[in-house]
Amino acid sequence: MQTLVIGLGSMGFGAAVSCVRSGISTTGFDLNPDALERFESAGGNTTKSLDSIANIDCVLIFVVNASQAESVLFDSQLLSGLNPDALVINCVTLAPSKAIEIGSRITSQGFQYIDAPVSGGAAKALEGRMSVMASASPQAMSQAKPVFDAISEHVFELGNDAGQGSQMKLINQLLAGVHIAAAAEAMNLAAGLKMDLHQVIEVISKCAGSSWMFENRAPHIAEGDYTPLSSVNIFVKDLGIVTQEAEQKNVVTPLSDAALTLYNKASESGLGAEDDSAIVKVLAERSGIKLPGSSA
Amino acid sequence: MQTLVIGLGSMGFGAAVSCVRSGISTTGFDLNPDALERFESAGGNTTKSLDSIANIDCVLIFVVNASQAESVLFDSQLLSGLNPDALVINCVTLAPSKAIEIGSRITSQGFQYIDAPVSGGAAKALEGRMSVMASASPQAMSQAKPVFDAISEHVFELGNDAGQGSQMKLINQLLAGVHIAAAAEAMNLAAGLKMDLHQVIEVISKCAGSSWMFENRAPHIAEGDYTPLSSVNIFVKDLGIVTQEAEQKNVVTPLSDAALTLYNKASESGLGAEDDSAIVKVLAERSGIKLPGSSA
Repeated sequence: MQTLVIGLGSMGFGAAVSCVRSGISTTGFDLNPDALERFESAGGNTTKSLDSIANIDCVLIFVVNASQAESVLFDSQLLSGLNPDALVINCVTLAPSKAIEIGSRITSQGFQYIDAPVSGGAAKALEGRMSVMASASPQAMSQAKPVFDAISEHVFELGNDAGQGSQMKLINQLLAGVHIAAAAEAMNLAAGLKMDLHQVIEVISKCAGSSWMFENRAPHIAEGDYTPLSSVNIFVKDLGIVTQEAEQKNVVTPLSDAALTLYNKASESGLGAEDDSAIVKVLAERSGIKLPGSSA
Repeated sequence: MQTLVIGLGSMGFGAAVSCVRSGISTTGFDLNPDALERFESAGGNTTKSLDSIANIDCVLIFVVNASQAESVLFDSQLLSGLNPDALVINCVTLAPSKAIEIGSRITSQGFQYIDAPVSGGAAKALEGRMSVMASASPQAMSQAKPVFDAISEHVFELGNDAGQGSQMKLINQLLAGVHIAAAAEAMNLAAGLKMDLHQVIEVISKCAGSSWMFENRAPHIAEGDYTPLSSVNIFVKDLGIVTQEAEQKNVVTPLSDAALTLYNKASESGLGAEDDSAIVKVLAERSGIKLPGSSA
């Protein structure tokens, strides 16, 4: 099964390496030469152009957003390098309506399409333990089994149609984005009350106020370490999708709106490439609070 | 160790029953005769008046708010029924400044005081497995050990002074209140997208968007069951404390503000005594969405 992974960022690199580890013949593509070199060091093949690939059975897409996904799929010669009945697994977080549109263009050319956004973070991706929120025809899901076995711990089968996977990812990102903002708000208030931030994490993690994101991101704030595992700009994009999708359906999202305001403000302040927990800096500045690691 | 439990609601009843189970001689007090009867059926002693108690070594307070706590402590003959050096364990969620004030009035009369808000919910309380966020002198903590052993799984020792326990509870309630609102917002959007709400819970619980509150409260929304385990009005009070305490320190809390707006609106709409997840009804009404169990 000749597999091509497009986009070797934190999640794509983990997926590509996991495929190699499982004995799948895997080629990686990324615009960044460092990413290609890193994947070669990990035992993968690489290509510098999507126009020169051939005989591919499965494409995994891990680019940043919908327009990049459309660009690699439709502005290159990629599709002409695929074998008949090849599988396109789109792992990009995008609006459900966009997933439906892309899926329809792919299947109309005789290929299989899986709407397959993922969750779990870079560490789990490297271990081949991401979660996949997948929707596709039974045939596509069956073809994808070796690849999903290689890259994932959980594959949630959410229906036969493109869009259903993306809907679930939308709900996950709403919660994740709000929970990071809540963690930032809680840690900022704790700092304002002169509490021991490490003790706050220890106690809250065992209480009803905890969340996956609190346990994962609050330590970044306590350490003052904003090395990006996932960046502020990811949530500018993803909560943007959430609020736009909701607005189209006339569904109100006051918590997402409040959180998105923080991500936008952080991005405008030059923090877009920092870890998403760096939105706490917006709160700290507005509150006159000095956080760990702050020079202000 | 003669122990008196004041307030036999969901948490107080669980604590009182746990004391009885551990062989501690326990008297319960509540204004509601049904609560007294229920505690007698569970093997406890009861009293109909705080003015007639005597020889008490330990008082556990589980009333609803600060003014009730002040009323039972200072507007009755309670303190004159306590043995010298008796222990007052205040488990009520209140502003840290109020915890300091009440603690100071108690210790100035020669009693021991523990600022001891709790977390964990009614089910854990009944099992003697609540979490206690305690701050008090080492002597008070030592005296309290048999009672804490009876009622709790975790006792976090947060310092020697009243107020430190209440600060931690404040941070917990900020997160808990926002996470319930986020769960409501996510489930309302999922309903608007015609998703299978039980499947949403199943998937999200295994993904990075999960929280303790999502896993606990989202099923209430999927079932349309708003039997109050903890009520909307509890968070009107607790997020009120959070936002007031933050405002006094000039700390901004945009997520808590957005969530409190929902709890207030729900309370004004007559939902105050329903389960806190009933704030989803405010979102559903504003979005024109029909939720499970809704007659609208």
